[in-house]
Order: sequence, then C-alpha cells, then structure tokens
Amino acid sequence: MSSTWKSNLTLSIFGQSHGAAIGMTLDGVPAGEEIDFAVLDAFLLRRAPGNAPWATPRKEADTPEFLSGIIDNKTGNKTDGKTCGAPIAAIIHNTNTRSKDYENIKKIPRPGHADFAAHIKYGGNADLSGGGHFSGRLTAPLCIAGGICLQILERRGVKIAARVVQIGGVRRRQHMSPVARETFASLTAPVVSNARLASFLEPEFVAEIMRAKEAGDSVGGIIECVATGLPPGLGEPMFDGMENRIAQLAFAVPAVKGIEFGAGFSAAAMLGSENNDAFTSHDEKIITSTNHHGGILGGITSGMPLIFRVAIKPTPSISLPQQSIDLETNTPATLEVKGRHDPCIVPRAVPCFEAVAAIAILDAMLD
Amino acid sequence: MSSTWKSNLTLSIFGQSHGAAIGMTLDGVPAGEEIDFAVLDAFLLRRAPGNAPWATPRKEADTPEFLSGIIDNKTGNKTDGKTCGAPIAAIIHNTNTRSKDYENIKKIPRPGHADFAAHIKYGGNADLSGGGHFSGRLTAPLCIAGGICLQILERRGVKIAARVVQIGGVRRRQHMSPVARETFASLTAPVVSNARLASFLEPEFVAEIMRAKEAGDSVGGIIECVATGLPPGLGEPMFDGMENRIAQLAFAVPAVKGIEFGAGFSAAAMLGSENNDAFTSHDEKIITSTNHHGGILGGITSGMPLIFRVAIKPTPSISLPQQSIDLETNTPATLEVKGRHDPCIVPRAVPCFEAVAAIAILDAMLD
Amino acid sequence: MSSTWKSNLTLSIFGQSHGAAIGMTLDGVPAGEEIDFAVLDAFLLRRAPGNAPWATPRKEADTPEFLSGIIDNKTGNKTDGKTCGAPIAAIIHNTNTRSKDYENIKKIPRPGHADFAAHIKYGGNADLSGGGHFSGRLTAPLCIAGGICLQILERRGVKIAARVVQIGGVRRRQHMSPVARETFASLTAPVVSNARLASFLEPEFVAEIMRAKEAGDSVGGIIECVATGLPPGLGEPMFDGMENRIAQLAFAVPAVKGIEFGAGFSAAAMLGSENNDAFTSHDEKIITSTNHHGGILGGITSGMPLIFRVAIKPTPSISLPQQSIDLETNTPATLEVKGRHDPCIVPRAVPCFEAVAAIAILDAMLD
Amino acid sequence: MSSTWKSNLTLSIFGQSHGAAIGMTLDGVPAGEEIDFAVLDAFLLRRAPGNAPWATPRKEADTPEFLSGIIDNKTGNKTDGKTCGAPIAAIIHNTNTRSKDYENIKKIPRPGHADFAAHIKYGGNADLSGGGHFSGRLTAPLCIAGGICLQILERRGVKIAARVVQIGGVRRRQHMSPVARETFASLTAPVVSNARLASFLEPEFVAEIMRAKEAGDSVGGIIECVATGLPPGLGEPMFDGMENRIAQLAFAVPAVKGIEFGAGFSAAAMLGSENNDAFTSHDEKIITSTNHHGGILGGITSGMPLIFRVAIKPTPSISLPQQSIDLETNTPATLEVKGRHDPCIVPRAVPCFEAVAAIAILDAMLD
Repeated sequence: MSSTWKSNLTLSIFGQSHGAAIGMTLDGVPAGEEIDFAVLDAFLLRRAPGNAPWATPRKEADTPEFLSGIIDNKTGNKTDGKTCGAPIAAIIHNTNTRSKDYENIKKIPRPGHADFAAHIKYGGNADLSGGGHFSGRLTAPLCIAGGICLQILERRGVKIAARVVQIGGVRRRQHMSPVARETFASLTAPVVSNARLASFLEPEFVAEIMRAKEAGDSVGGIIECVATGLPPGLGEPMFDGMENRIAQLAFAVPAVKGIEFGAGFSAAAMLGSENNDAFTSHDEKIITSTNHHGGILGGITSGMPLIFRVAIKPTPSISLPQQSIDLETNTPATLEVKGRHDPCIVPRAVPCFEAVAAIAILDAMLD
Repeated sequence: MSSTWKSNLTLSIFGQSHGAAIGMTLDGVPAGEEIDFAVLDAFLLRRAPGNAPWATPRKEADTPEFLSGIIDNKTGNKTDGKTCGAPIAAIIHNTNTRSKDYENIKKIPRPGHADFAAHIKYGGNADLSGGGHFSGRLTAPLCIAGGICLQILERRGVKIAARVVQIGGVRRRQHMSPVARETFASLTAPVVSNARLASFLEPEFVAEIMRAKEAGDSVGGIIECVATGLPPGLGEPMFDGMENRIAQLAFAVPAVKGIEFGAGFSAAAMLGSENNDAFTSHDEKIITSTNHHGGILGGITSGMPLIFRVAIKPTPSISLPQQSIDLETNTPATLEVKGRHDPCIVPRAVPCFEAVAAIAILDAMLD
Repeated sequence: MSSTWKSNLTLSIFGQSHGAAIGMTLDGVPAGEEIDFAVLDAFLLRRAPGNAPWATPRKEADTPEFLSGIIDNKTGNKTDGKTCGAPIAAIIHNTNTRSKDYENIKKIPRPGHADFAAHIKYGGNADLSGGGHFSGRLTAPLCIAGGICLQILERRGVKIAARVVQIGGVRRRQHMSPVARETFASLTAPVVSNARLASFLEPEFVAEIMRAKEAGDSVGGIIECVATGLPPGLGEPMFDGMENRIAQLAFAVPAVKGIEFGAGFSAAAMLGSENNDAFTSHDEKIITSTNHHGGILGGITSGMPLIFRVAIKPTPSISLPQQSIDLETNTPATLEVKGRHDPCIVPRAVPCFEAVAAIAILDAMLD
Repeated sequence: MSSTWKSNLTLSIFGQSHGAAIGMTLDGVPAGEEIDFAVLDAFLLRRAPGNAPWATPRKEADTPEFLSGIIDNKTGNKTDGKTCGAPIAAIIHNTNTRSKDYENIKKIPRPGHADFAAHIKYGGNADLSGGGHFSGRLTAPLCIAGGICLQILERRGVKIAARVVQIGGVRRRQHMSPVARETFASLTAPVVSNARLASFLEPEFVAEIMRAKEAGDSVGGIIECVATGLPPGLGEPMFDGMENRIAQLAFAVPAVKGIEFGAGFSAAAMLGSENNDAFTSHDEKIITSTNHHGGILGGITSGMPLIFRVAIKPTPSISLPQQSIDLETNTPATLEVKGRHDPCIVPRAVPCFEAVAAIAILDAMLD
C-alpha cells in the first residue's frame, strides 16, 4: 500500500472504516503557524456524515484529536496553538461501526467497489468492513491535513473554494467565470454547517439527489475548485507540475474518475486562436484576458486563478439488487447492499478538493 | 525542477529543445530483459517530427544512442541485447536547431506557452529557445523509456494501444468498446511509419487539421489509450493507485489539460445502477459485463481493459498575430510566432500515452 | 522536518516527548502477516525506561495501542491478528510528563543536546520539553515498527540480534565472531525484561555505568548488531545499498555518532590480502571463509551474516554543572540539568538497532 | 537498482565501467548559478586515474561533456555559463576499456568485490567488465555533481575540504583540530593536479602505498572531510538529518566500510562531561568551545565546522593469487586478478567525499 504522499510535505493516512481509529500525519509544515481549531472543525463538518437529508445516517462526531505537532507554548496545552516543527498527527476514533452489515461482501464483491480488487490483492486478509482502508471515510484525515494547509495559505493571501457544478443530469447553467470575483466571493463566504451546505446546493441539485434516493439508486456529479491569490512561478515542469501534484492527490479521493484543468476537455474542440489566453496588464500586474489555461502554464502557476474540475461517479452502493458473483463458488449471486450509504457523495466531497488543492499549493510554495 | 519520477522505476528526463542533447535514465528495470532496437525505433518514429503533411518541417533522426544498461554479453556490444541491471541511459543529439527564431520570446511571452511561467521562475537564466526544457521535444526521451517498458510488458502478455478519438470538433463516432477485441486488434497492428500513421487517421481528422493549418491556426483533440492483458491486483490504494500514477505521468506531456478513466466525466451523469459494472464469469475468470470503471477499482486493476483518455489543447504556437506584452517595457505587443510548429500535435502525441501507460503499468508490476 | 522514511516500506514517526502521544505509521507491510503482540511487548520492554538500576526513573507503560492495519478476521478484533494491507498505525500515550523540569532550557541550551539547533531552526515555536521531537523517547515508535518487521523476518528465517560491546572504557574482550553460531544463539535467547537485560550485561559494563552515575556524569558505548539467515542478493547498488539504508535509519536514533560494517574502521589498517574474504563452499552453499565484508558486497548481501556497529555518545544530560549561554542575554550561564536521565542509554538502545536492521532488511526483501 | 538519490536535489548516476559512457543528471539546482568549467575540471582531475606513481595506468581524459542545464545566454553556447533551471546532465565517454581482462570473473568472483553479489542478483546478465556499474569509475559522475555543488556553496561562504588521515598502519599524528583555521586554510589551497596531490600526501603515506604495491598487495585508509562556513539550522530531525544524508551518499562510494561524525567512535569511551561541547560566544556568535559533536546536533548544523571521517577498505583487486570458487562447477579456484588497479584508492577518493558533503549540504540549504 502506499498511503503516503511525500513531496515537500509528507502526508500519511491510516485507518480502516471500522477499525479503532483513522488518522494522518503531516510532516514538513513550517513551525510557528497558528491553527484555529474552531475553523478546522467547521471545515471538517462540511464533509461529515449525518446532517443533510440525503446523507448517510451514520453519525460520527469526527472531531480530530491532535497528538503531535501543535502546542500552545503559553499554556503548555499540546493541542491548541502553533505548529512547533514536529510532524502534525491527528486521529479520529471510530465509534459508530456496524461491521455485521458487511459480512456478505467478503464473498460477494459489490459492483463498482474496491472489494474485488482488495480481495485479489490482499486475499482473505483484507478488511472490507465499511470499505476498510478504501472507504470514503478516509477522506476525513485528508481534510484534516487540507484544513491545516488552508489556514496557512489564507494568511499568505491564497483563497480556495470548491462547489458543485453538476449532479447527475443537472448542470449549473454557467461554469464559474474564472475572473468573476463576485461569484468567487460568494463561494468563500463562511460555510459552517451541513444545514448551510444543504441550503447552498441549488434546489435542482437537491431534487436530483432525492430522485435517486427514492429510487434506491445513486447519482454522481462534477465539482469545480478555484484557488485565487497564487503567486506566479509555483510548481515544477514535467512530473511535479501543479497538474501532476493535484491530480495525484485528487485520485486518492474514492470515486474520482476524471480531472481537468482550465478549459480541460473542451479545449480539445477549440482552435489555438480561441484557446490561447492573451497576455495583458492590469494594475501593473501581467494577467491574461481569458483563463482557459486554468492558471497553469507548463505546470507552473501563471498568477491567474487555478481552476480544476473532478468527475465523481455515482456512489456504487445502492439499494437495488445487483448482479455479482460468489467468490467461493464462482457462481452468479444477487447482491443487495446493506449498510448506510449516501445516494450522492458529491456535496460532502466538496471540501476534499479544497483540501487537495491546499496541500498541493502549500507543497509547491515550499519548493 | 523535478524532471525525475521515482517510484519502483525511476525516470529522469533531461535536455532542452535547442541544447546539445536530450535524454533519459531509467533505473529499476529488471536484468535480463531483451530490447529490440528496431522495434523501439519504429515506436519512436510514430512520435518523430517531419513526415506527415501537417507536421512541423523540423527533421530530427531522433535515433537514441544508448550509453548504459543494455549489453550483448556475447559480442560485448553495449548498445544491443539485454538489460544488465544498471540504469538504462540514452540520449538523442539535437542537430537541427534554429535558436534565432526564438529571440523575441525572451521579452514577449507566447500566449498559451510556458515562456511566461519560466520567465517568472528562472528569470533571465531560463533557456526558452524552442521551449527549452518545456518543449514537446522532451517527450522523445519519455517515449524511449516507454518503448522499453512496452517491450517488457508485451512479453508478459500486456498490450497497450492508443489512438485519436477527437480532433477539434470532429469526434470518432463511437468510443472504443472496452471489450471489443476486433477493434483493439486493429489498433495493435504494427504501425511503423508516420505515413502509415497518417493513413491510419480518419480522413475527417486529417481534413480538420488541414483546415486549421491553412488558417494559420491550430487544433487540439482527445487521445484514448487501452491496455489489455493486465493481471488484477496491480496498483495501490490512495496515492499510488493506477489513476494516480498514470495521471502524474500524463500531465508531464505538454498540452494535456485533462484525463479521465473508464466512463470518466460521463459517469457524473449516470445513475449508480447504470454505471456499476456487474461481475460475471467468463472462461472461469471473473470479469465485468461492462467496463465503465475502465479496469480500475479503488486504484487497483480489476483485470478488465484499462482505459483512459487525455484532452490535448490546440498547439499554442500559431501563425496568426496574437496579443501579448513586452516584459521589458510592460506595454502591449503583438506577437507573430516564428519557428516550425505543428498545427496539431495530437497524432504525434499518441505514442506518448502508450509510453505513459507502459511506464505506470510496469512500475506497478514491480510493487 | 522529515520524520518519514519512504522506500518500499514507509515509516512515519510523530510525537514529542511531552506531547499527548507518540506513534508511527508503517505502510507497505504485506497482508496476511501474523503479529504476536506479547512478543512485540517483550521486545519493547527491552527499550522501556524505568527498570534497571541505572535507568531513568520515569516510568511509562509504553504499550502501543494499534489503530490500523492489523485485524483478527475471526473475532473482528482490530488490534490483534494479521496485517490486512492497510497502513499499520500505533500510538503510545504519554502519561508521566514533567514539563516544568525543562523550563530553563528554552533560554539556556543544554550542551550536546539538540536544544540549540532546534532553537535556531524553529525559533520560539520549538517544543523543547523533554527534548520534544528530538527525544530518545521517539525511538519507541521506531521499535514498534522494527518489532513488527522482526516477527515477519523471523518467519522467513532471518534472525537479528544486537548487544553491547563497549561501555565507556570497557570493551568486550572479543568481538562477536561473525560465524560463531553459539554466541549468536545465546544472543537470541528470549530477553523478556529489563531485569533480564541487566543480568545480561557483563558486570564490568554495569560497574562502568554505576561509576558514571555516582559521579553525576554519563558514559557512552558501542552496540553491535548481527543478522543471519539473509538470502544473498538483497539491496541495490549506489544509494540504496544495505549500508546506505541501515545508516540512514541508524542515524535517526539520537546520540549515534558513527556506524561501521564488517571490519569497518579497522579495515583501513589491513592489507587487501588480509581483508579480502576468500570464497569457498559449505554444504553446497557459497560462503566466505572470513567475514570482514560484514555480509555486504557492493551494497548487496552476500548471504554471510550482516554485521554493523554503532557508536553512541555519552548521554548529554548530566547532573554536573555545565557551561552554556543565555540566549536572551547572550551572556555565559551555568546550567544544571534537571529532569530524569539515564547515565547510560546504551543498554536500552540495543533493541533500536535490531529494529533498524529489521526495517532495512524487510524493506530490501520487498524490492 | 537505485542509482538515483532524490531529496531536494535529485542525482541520477548511470553507466558501466566498460560501457559507452558514464554520466549523471542533477536536478533541482537553482537557475542562475555560474559554473566555472576550468575549476570543475581541476576538481575532477584530483580523482582521475593515471597520474600518480601508485595509480592505475588506465588513462581517461575524464572531461565531462555537458548536455543539458547550463547555457551561456550571450553566446548561445549550451555548455558554458549559468544554470538555466533544466536538469544538468553530463557524460564522460569511456575510451580506454580492456574488457578481455575481465572474462574470467564471470565465473570466478573476485574476493571483496561485488562480482558475486551481482552474479546472484542479475544472473548471467550482469555486466561485470571492469566492475560494471559497481566500478569506482562511477564516482566520476558523483564528482561532477559534487563539483557543481561545491562552486555554488563557495559563493555562499561554505568551504569544504577533505584529506587523507590514515593509510594502512600509518596515521596522521594528530587529527585536524576542528577549530584550527590554519590547518584548514592549507587544506583548501588549490590542488590542481595529481602531481600536486601526490606531493601533498605525507611521505610516510606514499611509502606505505609503495610497500603494498611492490608486494602485489593493496592498502586502505581513512579520509577526513571538513565543511566550514555553514549556517546553523541546516538539516532535519530523524531520517533527513545531516548525518543521515551524508551517510547515505557516502556509502555510494565503493569500499567505504564506516563513517563517523565529530568524535565518532572515540565518543563511546568518553564521559558526558568530556564529550559535551560547552556553548560560548565569540564575536557575538554562539559557538562551542570544543567540537566533539562535529558541527551536528540532533541532525541539524550548529554552525561549527561539520566533520566526518570515512573508512576505506584496501582495494580488493590485488596481484597476489586468491582463493575463490568456480561458479559453474562449484569447485575451488585460484584467481589472479588481471586488469589495471590501484594499490590504494584512498588519495583519489578524497574529492569524492568533498562531493558527498557538497551535495548533502546544498540539498539541506534547499529545504
């Protein structure tokens, strides 16, 4: 397994959905960075299960316990205050697990899930309960790391916000204008609860999710993430460009099937004269008059907003009966997935890509 | 800069478009693998400039010179035969460079190119001639590495083939059926020359390219790559899954703006019951009856064909005058790009993604 | 900071001496390996403080709590049984901390300690209590990782044992004969308590330690580690040879000032005809008749016992007054180190190098 | 194989002793650094074979050919001038190879050499001629990389010099005083030829080498390296400390069997009160009054001179007949090593450790 991403920052993620705890260590964060735990908790709450009408009824407090790396030198309190240079480590104890729901998937793999691949790779030793280490629950530690990076970036003038732009067949009528500051401002308004998050979703999106839920089915979508305030010159050519780093991190989030930057796949249908972004100057800064390049040229930030979109497949766990195979007898088997599942994980996945962007950008700033 | 990709295999790419030579070292290839140089040369020829009617008139023999890692123990010839365990190193001398064409881009960055980013990052020290280290020419060493991996994989029963599925506004009418063996067989038929490659391109694609060329403009496209014969269980969860590795490598190819696996972005609009691939058995092997997952579940191969598509933006160098800025005076400037450029690099980029897939897959086999 | 070692195995160590907890994640261990927690606890006990007459009176249970990576599929117990492929994570809560003892070192750095370097590097944000992240206490997570690797190696026929060969001016009369199986057998006899460990130490060594302790002083020593049962061919040339890996890991243990393999520094004084180990065969296996090479040729195991020795400096914390400097006033200051310190950490450090060897060897086996 | 060291700098070394060429790529060097090729050649000449009375008569010009990464923007000359940010690549063609001398080692491994390990690891595919990739000749690319780093460090006020302190049984009467600036000044005096190097060796050292040579034997030694002018705070705790980095690089030099920092192995016999280096101030800088810590505390530079010593075993290739084994018949065989070998490689190895120190220090400066 390689659940460690090592660049300038090193992020190790551990845990299984129904194990004792999940957690992460983040190494390489500069000393002296102040971390506001209330802000971090609010960020994590946007990803947490249990609040929205469509979300899984599994409830987890999901408040991280910090073990290392952050101290308050005045009070001696080790879980509040500033980074001290030691690796930051945090865990979330799993409290609300129902492993029995997963007993049959050991022999009948769920279509669209990692069960079959894990069975091949780890044999009978794999922990498949709740998806084990492959569970979407493991994005909570990713968001702890990302939430820390976000706070550090914010103080350096970088803002990052993601939002839903498509749920199933319903698309937001227009993609975010890459230079529309008003739109972006509304995105970065404080979002402190899932209730708020729910209300933030356009009613058409909510309706599309509820339609799938009622049918015992699920639905996917597209998330768009934008980072502004980036200095030009971040990233490296070839294998450590901004696209490479963000893509490598983004595919760590389960259910991601595609990523595109700037104009992305639609650039394929454009002429060079349309797609090229003319350079111009604005307030003595060199900018481009359009932003099809999504803020990245040759792997390196141009100073324009960095924009990417990820495609999220529909949650593979659905209530409808599905065709699978019994691995013991090698005969067809019909599977009805129990357990608690979201009909759509897209809204809860939004902060994951803010986390991904924040980790990649802070990492590039440390080059 | 980080032009080194280090996993089980380590690939270092060096050189500038108009420097003395470009090249690569590939470390970690098992000893005893036979390399057929004629086959490798034929593979590289598909990427080489100078043959097709639309391609850049710059001619380079682009035959690699092997310096290390491959010997013929019978003859003592060090550049033919089998891998010996030492890192494989190969270079291609640059012989046909016209740096003067690039004199003005030092002060007037080309829209859509890395010139501006390189200027910010490396200041006056950047080598921008022909794109320097950012040039598409650096994909030649990538293809040397990939071509070696392809031969090794072929002996292990893995076949990899890519093809053009979209040029500008023209799309191939149907995407490759992931299980259509006939289609795949035709793809893997030997392609030994650019002439052949040209004839392979559907006439509508050629026409679209010629339209752009005649207008002094350029056009992008989409390439699809398929790998068959993969054992299930390759890849790791989280950061070293097959998607992560392939994406990190694919974005090293200039002009890539997006990547998707299996159903990719179209999965976002599907219901779970549509997108989930039912397990079934065929010839005592467990397969899926559809392949929306593109052969990857949880980052790990399922044994089904691995499928991905990349979006290539139109070549930023066009003959039409473009708006840019003079970096010395900070005033608007009109740029007319000289130099020799392809109106569409998509056909020549096809083998690059076979190379990317081969490197990532062989790397995962060495886990 | 880089408290992550990433090779085939990835080891991340986190925590500060007086933080909430210390711990580690170990990623890359194959699935299906049985871990015996009683054996692991016995191994950790050899490193634990508080038992021997000379050891620090700080008592810590130091029993690791496993959060991830090991499950018992029969009982569902997640902290006993077999590895499941997910990263193994374990923590040890810190329970017995007296940070007030360390208040003055924030302004008066202890000679021989990392205080001064940490002060320069992390400024006022460093956590210096108990040595913070630089504390020898962080070798407990290293031993958790190493103890797991030891059990896996044991099942593959590899035995690893270390012992004290020098304390201060007292040297063991003869170094371990690299082929003396009797000596090695006695070394590998179960050592289940510090009491046992104490009795294992030659009386002259104990006497040397007690002399230092009574003088308010401290003393260093040399530890020798031997691994037998290694297959030939482990390790890689250049930067990932066995010496490179072991050395990089060994210098992570505080107070190590040197490492040598086989004949080590004494090889410098030998003739080639003396130092070269003649090849011969024994029981149809090719061995060497002597083992000055310490089981490693060209970075790669020869199949002979792998032998290395590390030099441990005397514990820098002593009761005697020492000359230092007040960082606030930049004036001389006399320091009397409070806190609980070992007059000699060498006996407790012995398992750390068995851990180092086990991690490096298992890592090389996974190449 | 892993002949790539990836940290902030990435160094890839390739080639075999009797292959077409040897070389290196060095990635991560900042743009705009001026490289003086005459100074670099003089540095490489100190390592080159063929000049001193005891050295191998194999003559190689060993002048590197630069392919990438360094350009002169005024003249367009790509092999002189300043770094441009692209990876630096250089090769040395092998011109004077006599592979026939090595025919018998394919079946009769040379004692003390990597032949046997390579045979086990790579089977019949290994290139053993001249030691193949394990040859000491591969330290030439290491010195190209190190020589570049040395020039960059020199401009930042860091000086690095190594020297022989022991040959066989002859030791330099006193180790370099770590604060004796006069001694250091003499060390750093320009050393531009092997003739000069020879004259630099104390006559007792030369006599010891000639005694071994006349007996058909070989002799080892110890090299000491000192770096001054280092800022405090370089390096990281745990696995990326200065000792870890230097050790990992130093063991890439063939024949190194040990490394120690500061007081090293002799610290084991000291009391804490002797070994601890008292802090004091000098010219408003905090220094230590002694330097047993060798300039490194907790893996991090203290600002005092960084000092390390490496033990070099005697050259395994000797003219005297040696006992070995015929790998084909598994019967004893007497080996008489032909080929051209140094009776002592210690003097020629001196610049290798300046290179090792320079690479590690520049790498730490880029943290």
